[in-house]
Amino acid sequence: MIKAGIVGATGYAGIELVRLLSQHPSVTLTHLGSQTYDQKPYIDTVSSFRGKLDDYVCRNAPVEELADSCDVLFLALPHGIASRQINEKVLEKTCIIDLGADFRLKDVKIYEKWYGIPHSSPHLLPRAVYGLSEFERSSVSKTNLIANPGCYTTCSILTLAPLIRTGFLSGFTDSGGYPPILIDAKSGVSGAGRKAGTASHYCETNESIKAYKIASHRHTPEIEQYLEMNSDEPVRVQFTPHLVPMNRGILCTAYIPLGHTGKKTTSLDELRGLYLETYDNEFFVRILPEGIFPETRWVKGSNYIDIGIFFDERTNTIIAVGAIDNLVKGAAGQAIQNMNIRFGFEENEGLRSLPCFP
Amino acid sequence: MIKAGIVGATGYAGIELVRLLSQHPSVTLTHLGSQTYDQKPYIDTVSSFRGKLDDYVCRNAPVEELADSCDVLFLALPHGIASRQINEKVLEKTCIIDLGADFRLKDVKIYEKWYGIPHSSPHLLPRAVYGLSEFERSSVSKTNLIANPGCYTTCSILTLAPLIRTGFLSGFTDSGGYPPILIDAKSGVSGAGRKAGTASHYCETNESIKAYKIASHRHTPEIEQYLEMNSDEPVRVQFTPHLVPMNRGILCTAYIPLGHTGKKTTSLDELRGLYLETYDNEFFVRILPEGIFPETRWVKGSNYIDIGIFFDERTNTIIAVGAIDNLVKGAAGQAIQNMNIRFGFEENEGLRSLPCFP
Amino acid sequence: MIKAGIVGATGYAGIELVRLLSQHPSVTLTHLGSQTYDQKPYIDTVSSFRGKLDDYVCRNAPVEELADSCDVLFLALPHGIASRQINEKVLEKTCIIDLGADFRLKDVKIYEKWYGIPHSSPHLLPRAVYGLSEFERSSVSKTNLIANPGCYTTCSILTLAPLIRTGFLSGFTDSGGYPPILIDAKSGVSGAGRKAGTASHYCETNESIKAYKIASHRHTPEIEQYLEMNSDEPVRVQFTPHLVPMNRGILCTAYIPLGHTGKKTTSLDELRGLYLETYDNEFFVRILPEGIFPETRWVKGSNYIDIGIFFDERTNTIIAVGAIDNLVKGAAGQAIQNMNIRFGFEENEGLRSLPCFP
Amino acid sequence: MIKAGIVGATGYAGIELVRLLSQHPSVTLTHLGSQTYDQKPYIDTVSSFRGKLDDYVCRNAPVEELADSCDVLFLALPHGIASRQINEKVLEKTCIIDLGADFRLKDVKIYEKWYGIPHSSPHLLPRAVYGLSEFERSSVSKTNLIANPGCYTTCSILTLAPLIRTGFLSGFTDSGGYPPILIDAKSGVSGAGRKAGTASHYCETNESIKAYKIASHRHTPEIEQYLEMNSDEPVRVQFTPHLVPMNRGILCTAYIPLGHTGKKTTSLDELRGLYLETYDNEFFVRILPEGIFPETRWVKGSNYIDIGIFFDERTNTIIAVGAIDNLVKGAAGQAIQNMNIRFGFEENEGLRSLPCFP
Repeated sequence: MIKAGIVGATGYAGIELVRLLSQHPSVTLTHLGSQTYDQKPYIDTVSSFRGKLDDYVCRNAPVEELADSCDVLFLALPHGIASRQINEKVLEKTCIIDLGADFRLKDVKIYEKWYGIPHSSPHLLPRAVYGLSEFERSSVSKTNLIANPGCYTTCSILTLAPLIRTGFLSGFTDSGGYPPILIDAKSGVSGAGRKAGTASHYCETNESIKAYKIASHRHTPEIEQYLEMNSDEPVRVQFTPHLVPMNRGILCTAYIPLGHTGKKTTSLDELRGLYLETYDNEFFVRILPEGIFPETRWVKGSNYIDIGIFFDERTNTIIAVGAIDNLVKGAAGQAIQNMNIRFGFEENEGLRSLPCFP
Repeated sequence: MIKAGIVGATGYAGIELVRLLSQHPSVTLTHLGSQTYDQKPYIDTVSSFRGKLDDYVCRNAPVEELADSCDVLFLALPHGIASRQINEKVLEKTCIIDLGADFRLKDVKIYEKWYGIPHSSPHLLPRAVYGLSEFERSSVSKTNLIANPGCYTTCSILTLAPLIRTGFLSGFTDSGGYPPILIDAKSGVSGAGRKAGTASHYCETNESIKAYKIASHRHTPEIEQYLEMNSDEPVRVQFTPHLVPMNRGILCTAYIPLGHTGKKTTSLDELRGLYLETYDNEFFVRILPEGIFPETRWVKGSNYIDIGIFFDERTNTIIAVGAIDNLVKGAAGQAIQNMNIRFGFEENEGLRSLPCFP
Repeated sequence: MIKAGIVGATGYAGIELVRLLSQHPSVTLTHLGSQTYDQKPYIDTVSSFRGKLDDYVCRNAPVEELADSCDVLFLALPHGIASRQINEKVLEKTCIIDLGADFRLKDVKIYEKWYGIPHSSPHLLPRAVYGLSEFERSSVSKTNLIANPGCYTTCSILTLAPLIRTGFLSGFTDSGGYPPILIDAKSGVSGAGRKAGTASHYCETNESIKAYKIASHRHTPEIEQYLEMNSDEPVRVQFTPHLVPMNRGILCTAYIPLGHTGKKTTSLDELRGLYLETYDNEFFVRILPEGIFPETRWVKGSNYIDIGIFFDERTNTIIAVGAIDNLVKGAAGQAIQNMNIRFGFEENEGLRSLPCFP
Repeated sequence: MIKAGIVGATGYAGIELVRLLSQHPSVTLTHLGSQTYDQKPYIDTVSSFRGKLDDYVCRNAPVEELADSCDVLFLALPHGIASRQINEKVLEKTCIIDLGADFRLKDVKIYEKWYGIPHSSPHLLPRAVYGLSEFERSSVSKTNLIANPGCYTTCSILTLAPLIRTGFLSGFTDSGGYPPILIDAKSGVSGAGRKAGTASHYCETNESIKAYKIASHRHTPEIEQYLEMNSDEPVRVQFTPHLVPMNRGILCTAYIPLGHTGKKTTSLDELRGLYLETYDNEFFVRILPEGIFPETRWVKGSNYIDIGIFFDERTNTIIAVGAIDNLVKGAAGQAIQNMNIRFGFEENEGLRSLPCFP
């Protein structure tokens, strides 16, 4: 039994952490942190947990204090805060699983360029492990600083990884570089957080779809960094997020046009082989049968990622589609998966509940 | 470990039964019945269970055959079918939990009036136990024929029961009878079933609300029967269902105007006393604190019912509001609660998962 | 051609006023007022009007200044502001159509009790005309201070008026008073305004329904005042609003239980007679055929109110259901209808566009 | 005043035609055709038009008969039917505006390959004019057979046209051909029609997003044919539609990666120049200011297309985004625009009503 604290427990990722951790057999929740609801009963703002978490009162405590009493601390905070609160002392005492952006990018310059603020603890970046569970188990199991990947990032990378990690895409263009990689992503509104604003007002998002942060979304460098680390060539990704009128879910439709010349091509069989091999025996990754493609409703409430792969011979283009629940596999679920790896629990402990449809 | 079969496993109540039972520690799912998807893999129509239920193939088997191999059989069928398939032989071999309407009403004439068809096995009606779990534990534990209450019914009765079972409402009017009881109910679309039709088409229900089956909804006599059984006076209920553009959830707003004369009245304290006492220690019933009222989002995916009670002194009217997830407490969840009671498992076994918000 | 200004043009009622007035053949829009967007192009916040209103810049001007340049001024403001800005001088120069609450209640004590603030210009209350267009044409046509009814109010009163104005309900109870009148109302989210807040956040309202402001909604005294003015007895109304996950629309389900004694009763024919007679030749009121009841989708975008009436013999209860678009008949549309009456235009000028479905 | 008939008047495109045409000053609606609702009052299935169209009864009449009494006939039918019903005689008597697919593709082999059925009147294909209003005014004005473009097609082509028609894209690749053109499209559910089916059931589409008909959607050859007709090179398009839980709206996000080599590139200024020039003075095309991108809510209910253009220097990729209301500009609106052109009315007659938000 380990003691877990959550800083930022009243946002959507925080609430999902509470839901999952309070049902995890090896975890005791010892701290529910909130600035906004400091000193108020937790169920005042999350009435769903009434009857189970009635005794919890939100507190606004600094990470350094919490490090003493928690074996693991989940941080679900806006970027820029975690890197101010974490230091060596904290990391000696507790394991940090940061659901924010501060420790995801290895290159502090890239962080500062995309986030527009200075990084408060660049010296800790080398200690941070990028917690993409399926591929980083070994490193995750040994660190006290886990940078939990972003929601779009998780979906995008897992959807594309078999093409990159296997070296498959290398040398596809005449000039030797990668072909273009385009990711058209769609997310439910919970991805934007619980903070109120005109953009998240019901009537401003309902019955509409839009692209946003075109060419400038901060998950772009995160995707590129990880793909590039697993490739022998530079990787550039065109990433476009869209806002969809639904609570949960991310769908990433990725395109890799192999070029009109047709010199280099592939086949659906070859592609399916790469995916099935890469994700063989992965509990949370479901490679869909030929002809079936992901829909976010089928993963809602679960830690699964569903992936469908296709090759369009007519246009010589690879199309890969992935779907996750942004709050589970894209945030709280993967964070707990990392905790399980780090603390030696079964990797899917507390994460086996099936998707909830409809 | 008991063997459970589901007849009608591809409808929404059936899918929810599968989701909950496949995660129940004392149950093995041995049969997923479907007419429409006979001989097809179950995951073909419910892709969410991929990875877990890949080996299940839908079958269209008669109840009599299934009775041999199942300890418990859940029937999630349109009315009129269950009463044709169930007989004494079946009931000797297995426990039937019928989520349909055929065995809910004790008076076959009322059944035939509201449902418009003859009842195929009226002789079995006396054996059927109305499975309103919180109040019928003793009978449920001893029967092989459990009539699982309707979704609106469950929400309505539980929301009103403390006023009736305690005798509180008796004699409130000058003429000795009950004051009017009005239930204005609102349901998500899954309550209408998975069958396709213009009425359930996305664009015909989205962005709209309507009342339907005014004064003629079939859950009306069910509510009246149960309230009357627990009262010393005849009970008439004005029940009006509404269709709300959301997947899950039922909200019942009940009104009991005590009359302008003001001779008979009550107080919020007295009412809260009745509710807290009636539901003391009930795991699945959450009486909300003063001033807080139910919202369906707080019970989504769970077996809870949330109840709020109010007394309007200005109008001398009692207002009680209840919220459930129609597919859980209103169908599959309560059915499993009844199974737990019947087979001696912990009553909340397999039903403890928290609501999923947002 | 008259000159119209709108104060509060960037809220939902304001936007709807702009949409309708900019297409009205006898109106020139001369002022789009906004505090939040002062000095910014109007289309910055309402991109839908691009190409048509590109030259309009929001301004935050006081009503007194605007009175000089506008023949009619629509105020779409939170309560408490209009009554501070309007005075005799203003009313000499321009016609005020106030979509807010300040001039709706005749009794300043009732205003102050329900709104919790002092009224800034009680001396103007006698001059204000309650602009329920269908019944107040004569007064509306002669005043410079029109208090436009609230959204719930409009729907509730028009749905019930034929029972009251005809004297039909009088003396139905033994004690001589009215039977109970209960209104269970359901509204889309735009009714709560465009101001951002947790309560209007997409994920907090989507996929859920709730009752709110039980027994305390401020439209209650407004409904009572109007019904009472048109009755020979005191009227008390039980009014309960609910929030529905959709952009637009209000549905009011009204119940009048006539009592179990059965001494006094009625029939559907009699009721339909009252409704057809009351609304004979009303362009915007559609009394639905027997057996058909309103759905908000059928009035969306239009100034119609659809009304269905039913009598439940089993329970001796009258049920009346009304549906409007809260932003049109419940706000901007009725305001323009009043303007048309006041300025002698055809009453449905600029308001004839058909509902938009789906 | 011309006489207009609609065949298929009870589907969503048909209903939108009725809404718009019944408010068109130069049109009399003389026929509302329906197979399903033959002999039933039109308002039975479209209650929104009550009070306006009460006298209309649906009829299931053959096109040949209708040709005698209608100046213009709108066909909103599933593919394969129009080409069976239209012949030379019909085209001598009336102007056909076909909202279906039968006369859009010039090459009968491509039609038969993508639609999987033989074409019933290939000899009429040369007479058909592809009614993309903004670019085909001259041909549209002279024909009696207008093939109204598909919804996705209209949005896709108008979003990309300035890059093609100007010759801009020609020769961008080393091999001389076009760079890849990828269109990731998202549509509301009304695009799938009013026919009931599991796929359009509320609970199967709500709270989910999916890609569908990957690499096989029938609007693909339509887009390619038109772009190719306006280009000096073969054009291949990767087109992927997605289903979004909303009633109306299409958003097309188009990507043109210009290659990593960076030999050939462009700038936002150059691109904006192409768009502004191409659509100069077009009433229905709104090129959004720099940094602003389309959202479907801003065009809902109107005949506008909003277009945003961007150039990502980092990836050397052009991104163009377009948004329409699929039932207006993508169907009924453009059909009426074509009618206006054909009959010499003002092109935006009956189409000037502003978008309805929220």
